[in-house]
Amino acid sequence: MASSAVTYAKDNQQRFLGELKDLLRIPSVSTAPEHKDDVRRAAEFVANDLRRIGMENVEIIPTKGHPLIYADWLHAAGKPTVLCYAHYDVQPAEPLNEWLSPPFEPTERNDNIYARGAVDDKGQLWMELKAVEALMKGHGGKLPLNVKFIIEGEEEVGGESIAAYIRKEKAKLKADFALVCDTELFAPNLPTLCVGLRGLVYTEIEAKGAMTDLHSGMYGGAAPNPFFALIEVISKLKDAKGKILIPGFYSKVKAPTKAELKAWKKLPFKEEHYRKTEVGSKVLTGEPGYSVLYRTWARPTLEVHGMPGGFIAAGAKTVIPAKASAKVSMRLVPNQDPDDILKRYLAFIKKHTPKGIEMNVKVHSKGPACVVSTDNPYIKAATEAMHDVFKKNTVFIRSGGSIPVVTDFQSVMKLPSVMMGFGLPDDNLHAPNEKFHIPNFYRGIESIIRFFEKLGE
Amino acid sequence: MASSAVTYAKDNQQRFLGELKDLLRIPSVSTAPEHKDDVRRAAEFVANDLRRIGMENVEIIPTKGHPLIYADWLHAAGKPTVLCYAHYDVQPAEPLNEWLSPPFEPTERNDNIYARGAVDDKGQLWMELKAVEALMKGHGGKLPLNVKFIIEGEEEVGGESIAAYIRKEKAKLKADFALVCDTELFAPNLPTLCVGLRGLVYTEIEAKGAMTDLHSGMYGGAAPNPFFALIEVISKLKDAKGKILIPGFYSKVKAPTKAELKAWKKLPFKEEHYRKTEVGSKVLTGEPGYSVLYRTWARPTLEVHGMPGGFIAAGAKTVIPAKASAKVSMRLVPNQDPDDILKRYLAFIKKHTPKGIEMNVKVHSKGPACVVSTDNPYIKAATEAMHDVFKKNTVFIRSGGSIPVVTDFQSVMKLPSVMMGFGLPDDNLHAPNEKFHIPNFYRGIESIIRFFEKLGE
Repeated sequence: MASSAVTYAKDNQQRFLGELKDLLRIPSVSTAPEHKDDVRRAAEFVANDLRRIGMENVEIIPTKGHPLIYADWLHAAGKPTVLCYAHYDVQPAEPLNEWLSPPFEPTERNDNIYARGAVDDKGQLWMELKAVEALMKGHGGKLPLNVKFIIEGEEEVGGESIAAYIRKEKAKLKADFALVCDTELFAPNLPTLCVGLRGLVYTEIEAKGAMTDLHSGMYGGAAPNPFFALIEVISKLKDAKGKILIPGFYSKVKAPTKAELKAWKKLPFKEEHYRKTEVGSKVLTGEPGYSVLYRTWARPTLEVHGMPGGFIAAGAKTVIPAKASAKVSMRLVPNQDPDDILKRYLAFIKKHTPKGIEMNVKVHSKGPACVVSTDNPYIKAATEAMHDVFKKNTVFIRSGGSIPVVTDFQSVMKLPSVMMGFGLPDDNLHAPNEKFHIPNFYRGIESIIRFFEKLGE
Repeated sequence: MASSAVTYAKDNQQRFLGELKDLLRIPSVSTAPEHKDDVRRAAEFVANDLRRIGMENVEIIPTKGHPLIYADWLHAAGKPTVLCYAHYDVQPAEPLNEWLSPPFEPTERNDNIYARGAVDDKGQLWMELKAVEALMKGHGGKLPLNVKFIIEGEEEVGGESIAAYIRKEKAKLKADFALVCDTELFAPNLPTLCVGLRGLVYTEIEAKGAMTDLHSGMYGGAAPNPFFALIEVISKLKDAKGKILIPGFYSKVKAPTKAELKAWKKLPFKEEHYRKTEVGSKVLTGEPGYSVLYRTWARPTLEVHGMPGGFIAAGAKTVIPAKASAKVSMRLVPNQDPDDILKRYLAFIKKHTPKGIEMNVKVHSKGPACVVSTDNPYIKAATEAMHDVFKKNTVFIRSGGSIPVVTDFQSVMKLPSVMMGFGLPDDNLHAPNEKFHIPNFYRGIESIIRFFEKLGE
């Protein structure tokens, strides 16, 4: 039976969508200095709505980068406290010419709303606010549990400010669990909770050879080439089958449970379809003997993202560059320790650095994998709430990516996260024609309402 | 005994230097579209002087790129014909802040003239013109041999127009030998002729994996990474000691003669000094068992110049790029055939392309090595002329680089080249503070005068 909060949400769907469109019109691109004021405007838009719906102590918190937003409502004595997280900043919209409708003019087509940030993450942020608004209305100006919000504007640029804030304001942010709405459904109409993330160690290997760029005709055969040195070392880090060759790299890897692996096998996943429609390569790669989901969710990987240096314009230049770099990252799984892995990685590179070359490794980021136990009361309540909305059992998945804030909630605040997201795999996150399926926006609001009501019972 | 042409040249040194400064003030940077008119102005400056000194049929020849300049004087019946080559275009001057005096305001310091193009190649071009001027004056308005000039404005951008022109105008350019003034002395005060160049095959390997850039968290472990594929393949092309592993790569390599190797050993070359002052690396690299000069002049090499693709800005982005490339070149030695080498290289890459990756190889340029026999009459006369000027025996060296026009003279026109250059190893070609040692400018003029007089005897 629908609560009066659910009824209120249903009655106000069109208005909620209209508000979301207003938010989507603000180009809050956090990486672009020219959009700094827009990011600020988006923060104010969100803060104003938090005040309007009855949240208290609403603050726009200045940081070195873009502002954080805090709000709370803490009058449900004896009930749990949730820390709601989302972000109001968006990725750049480029390449603009690939958008069918302008990225900051939200447009409805086929039950979807198209705009930069539609699903990542303004649409999902707005679900949280609208669920709280409906709960407040449906429960006579009160909420069934205690609610805190911490909302950031730097998710797309590394999230440094929230990381610092979490460390500084542990007491203020104290809660029983976090609700993180920034993930997706495994398939359309399939209620999904994400319960595992891979960790990440992201490095840049800087190689130096000669003191200056040299002509490859004059000096080829005598001067060390930092590109070749990087190629030599990186080729030794991983074999052609995807096995990482750093000694001890796999020693702490904890495999998923048998039950988890069994559940993954039941997910609606067709490898050939995935290869064709998502990856689009001739074949898939990775360690033999593991399924795609296992490889991308629960096996560590090593990738090269770019190799700056030398001559990269069109045409030919015969230079032996003095310097070159490689951006190399490793995805980690439970229970690999990022510091231990980094130590082994650095030792391996040192050992294999070719003669004549100096190699220095810069660490861009470093964080462990994170797995949420599925038997805590918050995951249970979330599962039931989604069942009520979708009339289907919720599946537990992992993600191969990393959400640093979830890792921080867990490791800094000992706070379990409920990663309840309503995106779809083809929503074009970070790409042109980003969209959010409008029925999923409404289901998300209803799921959060029911979830919070269950915890307040 | 000095001829009256030599005396004339000595009497006019200051004027010659003044004219060179005027030419150096024209920023004829061939790669920069905004300097197109300056390049044209430099061509006109040179053509005007050719007319003034008595050359005939002076033409500024339009091309798809920058103009060529032709001129001749063909009234020395029964005497040999020389084709004088040089170029009037220059490299960009950037980085400007590293110049001690502005690159296009020629400045004298310590007997050097500092300016972009001072030695490469305006100063050496001007030696040719001033030698001809002095010969004309010293021989009563006649020259001791027949002279043609072909001067280009695209040497620094690939020289496509002159390559096409040579193929089209073989008859017009017909000569007994070419004089190429664009090289350097092996050491200060050491008369030097360059008699060998390495060939070049310059390629770009383009690797494609997924159909679009993918997130390394979501897809790492399933999507092929074109960077890793390039690294795998390139690491197999060459071992850590510099040996190229393509089957048959060395089968046609012709070693220098024993006499040549013996002569190289007598050259004033200190490996440790070279390492410290020219290369500046911790150690030198290359095939064991070969000297530095052997490795850089007469052994083939393989280098990576740049690897475009993926994320190369500052910081971290977790992308598995859809595409990445590697600019890879090979320097060839006698008697390696560029087509044969390219065929073997392509087969090797095809064989080692990892699964899931498409690799295509683009060829940017391709030309054989070139060795000039030292017993032709032109080399002999050049040797004697330089001995008269420097009072020392001329040394024969090779260069590890490629001068495509010399290869074209040899292969298209069957024309031996005399590569007589007066630069110094520390003249900062292609770098800030390019200079030309003024006494070498004057010695160059005198050497050419004496060289041509000997051939006219």
